[in-house]
Amino acid sequence: MIIIGELINSTRVPIKKAIEEKNVSYIQDIARKQAESGVDYIDVNAGAFVYEEVERLVWLTETVQEAVDKPLALDSPRAEALKEALKVHRGTPLINSITAEKERYEAIVPLVKKYNARVLALCMGDAGMPETAAERLDVARQLMADLERDGVAPENIFFDPLIKPISVDGAFAFQALETIAGIAGWNKGVHITCGLSNISFGLPHRGLLNRAFLVMAMERGLDSALVDPLDREMIKLIKASEVLLNRDAYGAEYLKASRAGLLD
Amino acid sequence: MIIIGELINSTRVPIKKAIEEKNVSYIQDIARKQAESGVDYIDVNAGAFVYEEVERLVWLTETVQEAVDKPLALDSPRAEALKEALKVHRGTPLINSITAEKERYEAIVPLVKKYNARVLALCMGDAGMPETAAERLDVARQLMADLERDGVAPENIFFDPLIKPISVDGAFAFQALETIAGIAGWNKGVHITCGLSNISFGLPHRGLLNRAFLVMAMERGLDSALVDPLDREMIKLIKASEVLLNRDAYGAEYLKASRAGLLD
Repeated sequence: MIIIGELINSTRVPIKKAIEEKNVSYIQDIARKQAESGVDYIDVNAGAFVYEEVERLVWLTETVQEAVDKPLALDSPRAEALKEALKVHRGTPLINSITAEKERYEAIVPLVKKYNARVLALCMGDAGMPETAAERLDVARQLMADLERDGVAPENIFFDPLIKPISVDGAFAFQALETIAGIAGWNKGVHITCGLSNISFGLPHRGLLNRAFLVMAMERGLDSALVDPLDREMIKLIKASEVLLNRDAYGAEYLKASRAGLLD
Repeated sequence: MIIIGELINSTRVPIKKAIEEKNVSYIQDIARKQAESGVDYIDVNAGAFVYEEVERLVWLTETVQEAVDKPLALDSPRAEALKEALKVHRGTPLINSITAEKERYEAIVPLVKKYNARVLALCMGDAGMPETAAERLDVARQLMADLERDGVAPENIFFDPLIKPISVDGAFAFQALETIAGIAGWNKGVHITCGLSNISFGLPHRGLLNRAFLVMAMERGLDSALVDPLDREMIKLIKASEVLLNRDAYGAEYLKASRAGLLD
């Protein structure tokens, strides 16, 4: 499971404040905690700063990588912000994200190629955000064809089916799960990830719904997720699911986590 | 979700002792706790008493139903024990269980018919316990054909794919999940249930594995389970999964449970 730590996101009020005040120790502390929990990528997002996103994202990239030896998920829809952040980023980043929208795709894919980066591809096109699994899979297939044509290796592509709240439509979880199963069924060697927490928007005990949904999504082929890596219950269920899905040979990782007291 | 409370089983040492001593209050206390947690059936098993199973099962049936107003899952492979327990049982029981084994099938199905009972059908035949999903589905199809021929209504049939430990073979969870999906795909209106806990045999933190497996199985079509209904974490995940799978319209049950503090 490829875990992307989601906590350094400017849409969260304390993070926005810390970025605004250039509070290095606050940001680095959260970066370190996520790194210690074993994440593969640390997401950095400065999108709340509409007019200063470029310089804020560069500052976040430098600040986080000064503290931890992890690649980042550079989280912006804007090529300009990604371009500047990529100049200072060390290692192989995950660019978060492209869509099938022509303008965004054409602006960002050259950066993916230039840096041999991994890229998160949202199942969304110029016609907006699709509802059904069939519509999302159409968008995903188009994106896959375009990325293959443009020479992006499948193992560098992370599809995101886009999660919408079940409080809006009770079938939204099902649609997302079917999309995941559809992409997994291609057997193309791409990754499938998602930002989980949208699923539970508007309902109580959101963490519980997020965790159950994650287990279901893993069962359908999800092999990455954008999550709060400090959510111990979530990490426990991920470890258990990996054993159950035979992705953790002989339960080696599970037994290691158990001995380290991480499953208590 | 149709929950069968599993706690009154003579293979558990304290239960065996209580049955031996005819400790009415001990058994009734566990029956009441399970009933209060909202189970649909309370399983009663006296199989540990090889030579006295019949009278012990009758005693359990009477003792439990004296305390709670719930139907029971009469848990025995032996027609003789079931026959006597059925004579004293009140309401519509779940007979646990038949298999495709000729002798067992022919001895028990007449009882299912006579009492218009529900019946748990294990995916196991005269050739023993199948390993792969394809083999289990073959057995399930045979059982389904026989039960239909014998006039048992689909809604009274609970298929159990039979769960084997992932510590023995890492693919066993996958095989069980595929079996569940296969039976659900028939759209015959049958139920699918299982005894969960075998999945985690031989591994630490078994409850964690059982819970993750239950969520996956629900996603593939499981609509019943034999569980410890006092396991709060399990029940929370069941409630969350029902919302996610759109089986709990408008999240009404989930919100009710939340207000009652059951999801804390």
